[in-house]
Amino acid sequence: MRMDLNADAGESFGSWKLGNDEELFKYVTSANLACGFHAGDPLTLYKSVRLCKQLGVAVGAHPGFPDLRGFGRREMAATPGEVYTDVLYQLGALSAFLRVEGLPLHHVKAHGALYNLAAKDAATAKAIAQAVHDFDPGLPVVVLPSTPLEAEALALGLRVVREAFPERGYAPDGRLAARGTPGSLIHDPEEAARRAVRIVLAGELEAVDGSLIRLEAQTLCIHGDNPNAPQIARRIRQALEAEGIEIRAF
Amino acid sequence: MRMDLNADAGESFGSWKLGNDEELFKYVTSANLACGFHAGDPLTLYKSVRLCKQLGVAVGAHPGFPDLRGFGRREMAATPGEVYTDVLYQLGALSAFLRVEGLPLHHVKAHGALYNLAAKDAATAKAIAQAVHDFDPGLPVVVLPSTPLEAEALALGLRVVREAFPERGYAPDGRLAARGTPGSLIHDPEEAARRAVRIVLAGELEAVDGSLIRLEAQTLCIHGDNPNAPQIARRIRQALEAEGIEIRAF
Amino acid sequence: MRMDLNADAGESFGSWKLGNDEELFKYVTSANLACGFHAGDPLTLYKSVRLCKQLGVAVGAHPGFPDLRGFGRREMAATPGEVYTDVLYQLGALSAFLRVEGLPLHHVKAHGALYNLAAKDAATAKAIAQAVHDFDPGLPVVVLPSTPLEAEALALGLRVVREAFPERGYAPDGRLAARGTPGSLIHDPEEAARRAVRIVLAGELEAVDGSLIRLEAQTLCIHGDNPNAPQIARRIRQALEAEGIEIRAF
Amino acid sequence: MRMDLNADAGESFGSWKLGNDEELFKYVTSANLACGFHAGDPLTLYKSVRLCKQLGVAVGAHPGFPDLRGFGRREMAATPGEVYTDVLYQLGALSAFLRVEGLPLHHVKAHGALYNLAAKDAATAKAIAQAVHDFDPGLPVVVLPSTPLEAEALALGLRVVREAFPERGYAPDGRLAARGTPGSLIHDPEEAARRAVRIVLAGELEAVDGSLIRLEAQTLCIHGDNPNAPQIARRIRQALEAEGIEIRAF
Repeated sequence: MRMDLNADAGESFGSWKLGNDEELFKYVTSANLACGFHAGDPLTLYKSVRLCKQLGVAVGAHPGFPDLRGFGRREMAATPGEVYTDVLYQLGALSAFLRVEGLPLHHVKAHGALYNLAAKDAATAKAIAQAVHDFDPGLPVVVLPSTPLEAEALALGLRVVREAFPERGYAPDGRLAARGTPGSLIHDPEEAARRAVRIVLAGELEAVDGSLIRLEAQTLCIHGDNPNAPQIARRIRQALEAEGIEIRAF
Repeated sequence: MRMDLNADAGESFGSWKLGNDEELFKYVTSANLACGFHAGDPLTLYKSVRLCKQLGVAVGAHPGFPDLRGFGRREMAATPGEVYTDVLYQLGALSAFLRVEGLPLHHVKAHGALYNLAAKDAATAKAIAQAVHDFDPGLPVVVLPSTPLEAEALALGLRVVREAFPERGYAPDGRLAARGTPGSLIHDPEEAARRAVRIVLAGELEAVDGSLIRLEAQTLCIHGDNPNAPQIARRIRQALEAEGIEIRAF
Repeated sequence: MRMDLNADAGESFGSWKLGNDEELFKYVTSANLACGFHAGDPLTLYKSVRLCKQLGVAVGAHPGFPDLRGFGRREMAATPGEVYTDVLYQLGALSAFLRVEGLPLHHVKAHGALYNLAAKDAATAKAIAQAVHDFDPGLPVVVLPSTPLEAEALALGLRVVREAFPERGYAPDGRLAARGTPGSLIHDPEEAARRAVRIVLAGELEAVDGSLIRLEAQTLCIHGDNPNAPQIARRIRQALEAEGIEIRAF
Repeated sequence: MRMDLNADAGESFGSWKLGNDEELFKYVTSANLACGFHAGDPLTLYKSVRLCKQLGVAVGAHPGFPDLRGFGRREMAATPGEVYTDVLYQLGALSAFLRVEGLPLHHVKAHGALYNLAAKDAATAKAIAQAVHDFDPGLPVVVLPSTPLEAEALALGLRVVREAFPERGYAPDGRLAARGTPGSLIHDPEEAARRAVRIVLAGELEAVDGSLIRLEAQTLCIHGDNPNAPQIARRIRQALEAEGIEIRAF
């Protein structure tokens, strides 16, 4: 039995620092690097790729909406053509640094509001899936299970990797509880670790209302902008390894 | 005897249109596409790549400073590390669209203030050349002859392609006369064509002060943001072909 | 009887030009100047204010979403706090140029997707109205009639100025027909002029489905980014004046 | 005897936090708030103005180059017209929030590369001084002594406020030692406090080469982006007060 731990990373911008990637990368096995639209300027991207290489973390692309100030967390009414070309642009930009460092692009995971929109809007989902497919049909896409993005990616023959969030609360319908609502964020590393183990071993988790939901996952996400993200990642990793689960990139 | 005609293109941004690429591409053989930093959003870039493909124009990258408002024409005190990563980022972004369309990246030519800075500052020149080399050591770099960029590119084993400007005035030292100074821009297509022929056949041109300078060129540049750029390109092409010179991409 | 003609203006950005304000300002009586978020850099804003002063056009603020690439036409999920501070910021920025030129700020009209959102979402409408009120409670707000923005502005004691669009198609419910749908844009100056007269004299207009809607207006909008905007403005002005209607700023 | 302590503040942007203004504002008497071009989005600006009001800190404008990624620290070849309008735009934007909170604009201090350029280039200095003058001829300008900005501001009849930097090293010619060179940054609060006292009481300081320079100052600057800025500010304030110097805004 094995599991991937992924984290959003490379989220600094210019003089502004965010996250503690160096510490976080000791525990996660794949990273979703911001590609410059919601975070991550070229120099940050380059340093992040090199850090992944040095610490053996698989590099994924984390394309987002072009909204630095909103950190890509504000939904935008972009057309499918804009989403398609925005994603391609970001995949290409990241790939330049991977090429220079001799690394493969490991996966694609949409960021923030783009991720959420792809989990409910088929046209956006299709635009993202098409961009990934046209860039490289062998590139896996990380998805929230049972969403338009999963369906569109599968329809194009892409490999999908189902994701769960041990440190985020879930609504009873299996979606993530909106940030800011009660129970939407788990800050306690022990609780996050307990939830991670339950997801992996039992394929289930309690939602914010206490009801039970099914969660099948090939990767668990840890948010890098959480101040104690490294602690959470470490505890999750320890707890999973203690159950005999091998932690490595999918 | 043959010659390439190159033009800066893809310089629209969002709702703002610049240039008449569709018309211009009838006459030029290679295009330098803005990559999003000084002009050219992802959708524009995609359309520009497709237009190049349709009209058989070779696609080059035209990386610039990150300054949309200044159109990349304002020198910025970027560090070599910032220039290196900015160029890589832009090469990668453009390459995503080329990959999707099955086209190769034909060359790299720096834009505006970055081009000018690379023609006088060795550290900037080296950063650009290194980025091109690390991205693809077989990629030709378009250079102003006898500049730091030419020297740094040659030092890294890159192929350099020397460029001349039939519709720009030259200072007696072989540099371009600054925009806004008398004689710095040639608006008359006939005059531009006459100058193009003289450059190609005689390897020389008169500077703004009337003195004669040597100009060895493998490509001639036509600026796409000039309102009558298509007319100038057509006349230059006609005049060169009338002299038996074959017009095609280097 | 009198009527104001307003136009969106100052919509260039850096090297990119949009609209023909110099020509348009011969016919309209008030201008809504882009304030730098969706168009209009500081130098453009300054030139636009001076042009308004020279030609006697009343200057209004035209705040929009921070989305240059989308020209402020893409709805963004900004919070009320973000909308409130974005609008204040833009009002202040424009006011600096008015202060230097000794002109008053004549009115505020939201732009594009922000205008549309304020016509359906009460929280956004309230944020805009509150920003205008807190900046200057005597400042009129241009509104689409019978919308949340009108209600929120009135609730704060602001003067509202009702607006109609002679060169835009209307849905049967009195909203603007979405751009891109049939009949959403009127390109014929004669037809636009006929519609303007009907709105002013009869207070009514036919919707895109032929049904009749009531339209009470104190100002008519002409879009400055329409290539033939000056022709449309001239014909509307002529037609209204031929009916004895005085054209001047509200 | 009295002295003002000023600090750059409001330097967060969107999700990215920089500085600890809440702590710093306990010790300084005036703040230079980033106005959105190099840092400080509208929401940040609003919060910063309110924090200044709450803690009794005088609010100054801190206009910079339009370069978020470079934090306004990269010199840009902006024209005087661009500098003039960029400064006006930023003064106006900040003023909107001051108006809402019923506060006056206390002073203007250029940021980073714009400050440095105004200390050596007369055209840039004149553009800044003219913008301040045209916005409000009673507005004081903070200057590095004996620079073009001081001269241009005085020539326009503006009040200048001379500034010194107790936690920055000085070159023997009285300029600031470039960041990154040895001795350019003083990290030790005790040392910074000692230097502050020497500047205020003796009007002199040792340069990085040990030579003595004259430094007349009406305000001392503490950089807000320094992680231990609050500690430095506290020690400087304590040391000055221990010498009987009253700390309050000029």
